[in-house]
Amino acid sequence: MFNEPENDPRLTALAASLPTSVPFVGPEAQERSAGAPFKARLGANESVFGPSPKAIRTMRMAVKETWMYGDPESHDLRMALAKHHAIDPSEIVVGAGIDGLLDSLVRLTVTKDTPVVTSLGAYPTFNYHVTGYGGVIHTVQYTADYEDPEHLIAKAREVGAKLIYISNPDNPMGTWHSAATIQRMIESVPRDCLLLLDEAYVELALDGTAPAINTNDARVIRLRTFSKGYGMAGARVGYALGHKTLISAFNRVRNHFGMSRISQAGALEALADQDWLGDVCNKVDAARKTLYQIAEDNGLKAIPSATNFVAIDCGQDGEFARAVLNELIEMGIFVRMPFVAPQDRCIRISCGTPKDMTLVAKALPKALAQASGQVLGKSLFGTGSQKT
Amino acid sequence: MFNEPENDPRLTALAASLPTSVPFVGPEAQERSAGAPFKARLGANESVFGPSPKAIRTMRMAVKETWMYGDPESHDLRMALAKHHAIDPSEIVVGAGIDGLLDSLVRLTVTKDTPVVTSLGAYPTFNYHVTGYGGVIHTVQYTADYEDPEHLIAKAREVGAKLIYISNPDNPMGTWHSAATIQRMIESVPRDCLLLLDEAYVELALDGTAPAINTNDARVIRLRTFSKGYGMAGARVGYALGHKTLISAFNRVRNHFGMSRISQAGALEALADQDWLGDVCNKVDAARKTLYQIAEDNGLKAIPSATNFVAIDCGQDGEFARAVLNELIEMGIFVRMPFVAPQDRCIRISCGTPKDMTLVAKALPKALAQASGQVLGKSLFGTGSQKT
Repeated sequence: MFNEPENDPRLTALAASLPTSVPFVGPEAQERSAGAPFKARLGANESVFGPSPKAIRTMRMAVKETWMYGDPESHDLRMALAKHHAIDPSEIVVGAGIDGLLDSLVRLTVTKDTPVVTSLGAYPTFNYHVTGYGGVIHTVQYTADYEDPEHLIAKAREVGAKLIYISNPDNPMGTWHSAATIQRMIESVPRDCLLLLDEAYVELALDGTAPAINTNDARVIRLRTFSKGYGMAGARVGYALGHKTLISAFNRVRNHFGMSRISQAGALEALADQDWLGDVCNKVDAARKTLYQIAEDNGLKAIPSATNFVAIDCGQDGEFARAVLNELIEMGIFVRMPFVAPQDRCIRISCGTPKDMTLVAKALPKALAQASGQVLGKSLFGTGSQKT
Repeated sequence: MFNEPENDPRLTALAASLPTSVPFVGPEAQERSAGAPFKARLGANESVFGPSPKAIRTMRMAVKETWMYGDPESHDLRMALAKHHAIDPSEIVVGAGIDGLLDSLVRLTVTKDTPVVTSLGAYPTFNYHVTGYGGVIHTVQYTADYEDPEHLIAKAREVGAKLIYISNPDNPMGTWHSAATIQRMIESVPRDCLLLLDEAYVELALDGTAPAINTNDARVIRLRTFSKGYGMAGARVGYALGHKTLISAFNRVRNHFGMSRISQAGALEALADQDWLGDVCNKVDAARKTLYQIAEDNGLKAIPSATNFVAIDCGQDGEFARAVLNELIEMGIFVRMPFVAPQDRCIRISCGTPKDMTLVAKALPKALAQASGQVLGKSLFGTGSQKT
């Protein structure tokens, strides 16, 4: 019918203009490419400690119910979340992970040329959706590895932004602001602008990181997930908390029958087992400290983290950090790194089991030595063996 | 911040204009409303026969992997589907059910005022997405309970449609066209128009219902699912088959990490167990025949079906059929019915277990008697006890 190789002629102008690149390549693709599985999976900030054993048991039981669609209202889960957060169920929408909720939220608020503000190097899937709906992304720099609330607000005023994105704690750096700082940010949101507060990692942070939830305040919508602290990344369950007028708008665009039945059952049980979450927080804290120590043992600086990962400053530029990362991957350790300078001087390592951490402790000195040799060789001879 | 109860001021004009109604209310909401569970769940064309026991075992095993994101490329499943359909993996995209794929496909092709064509009373979730992206829906009537390929094509030419939707076999009527008829339809698709062939029920139809798959033909994209014949509605796994240029465009907008890991593993195993699918087809066929007999026993006409449900013509108008449906629901039997006249003279009953079918056989005469009394009472006294 047509020979045009790039674009189907029936795509909208917007769809035809979109890049084909994707925010993240999965570890499975890397394993297929390498022809071997990773020995440690520490690149996507999944929880190696897994979900509550009670959630696992419930999901196993729910498998026999897979012939039935999941409840499109996620009623039981929303009721439990409402109780947990002491808000009304009408102030909660459940979706297929924060990624899925970001899609719906951006769709509801962003159209061609709508300005939004985020930090340069922040979560790329937000940008993916903004671009996907035709919006225009304005960025501000991190300030000393922290997303910068004041600069974000100022930029939003400057460009008349519809949305401001911030994650607290931050991904990919792991840094965090106090509840008071975020509350001040909420109170500075310009009129007709919405603050999108991504709290994916907040269960793993210290008390005092999340401001009190106030769903009467329509200036902010908060995103939470069962993928991180609750250890259920593969189940795809996230939720948004906000003013009921905004929350109800999700029902106009979301895929009502999009939630896995097993996942809903698992999330409900995971939420009930706060003791398990507490244990995970302790294990994550221990692994964070181990990663800090590993950094120190290698003469490097770890960025203090309130998440289940640690960004380690490799002490040079992005090229060097990428060489270190590639060496770790070659050694079977899946890690990732920030996308942009100057944060890309770091590699980002998820908190793992003691065995995972031992693998990192053994591999990192070798990776640093190899990377030093490569970068040195490249600067001496104008060549090198780096992979991109 | 604002007192406007209906709309958040930050919604796009399109989002603000969208209706709050949803295509389907789930049976769980009806159960909560009634305060009792249904005795038979025969309204959503789920497969009461469930997925392959091998798929169940695999999903139970996969539960312990839920801490990991699912492969964003659904690589293994796409490879297996490619082999199954003798096409290339680049010609397949996996998504969260046909509903999720419809969302992406409509997003890629429909923008403000884009004309699309479907049948009046066909799958409402397609319309939901078209409206959701600002498109304009043009409809043609069913012809004698069949979607009408010639009229659909003619209407598409008339309005310059970007998309034509047809399901074969059809939902909600269960009727079907031969492969030859659908192939002729494909060959009549106007230039720069795309035929969206929803084959959700095709595994349950007779051989000769699906035209040969030809992914070189960019005029058609075909949608398949693990929700119906494969019995995994709650897992949310669907896939689209088409020209690789169009298929690759999904990667620009889809939620790459949207697929449950357990669901991917289950679908892979379900696909491998074609013997189980064959058994399900036999059980569905037996249940269809039972439903035909139940209709006949009540002096009603069943519409011959190539799906896992049967539309039973209640012999009067939509008001009467709705009264019958409400009586069945009151008796604990979840069923649904077509939305528009004249198909709404029917109720639609999914194929169930022999026990389910016995419940229907017992309940239907009572429901018909009750509905007759109500409708008679209403016409005599201008009142009645009908629920909507």
